[in-house]
Amino acid sequence: MITSKTRMQGSSVVITLPPSNGEKPTPNTEYIVEYSNDGTIILVPKMDDTFNVEEIGVFYETDE
Amino acid sequence: MITSKTRMQGSSVVITLPPSNGEKPTPNTEYIVEYSNDGTIILVPKMDDTFNVEEIGVFYETDE
Repeated sequence: MITSKTRMQGSSVVITLPPSNGEKPTPNTEYIVEYSNDGTIILVPKMDDTFNVEEIGVFYETDE
Repeated sequence: MITSKTRMQGSSVVITLPPSNGEKPTPNTEYIVEYSNDGTIILVPKMDDTFNVEEIGVFYETDE
């Protein structure tokens, strides 16, 4: 069970993400932050929109 | 949708917990950190053991 404490840094609250199995979390990763009513905080890695592509029609498939 | 980015601070990875609805998360709160295989990080507030009490027999209830 890994634990970590929140702390003030300037005017914002930060938390250290401790290493698990000797591996540190990746820096510069964007997370979606979800606060649950029970106090749990969920950090979901933000993904780029898969369908946001340059070309129009790249997902088009011809009928066989 | 609130997002936040991880960053290096010294040798550890930290993330700012952004305010939600104008309210900041509480500093000095201990969280249990859970890393999921899909990259999601769950922070569960650590609670004291409810049954870790001083007196022996405080939970004893007599039969009616």
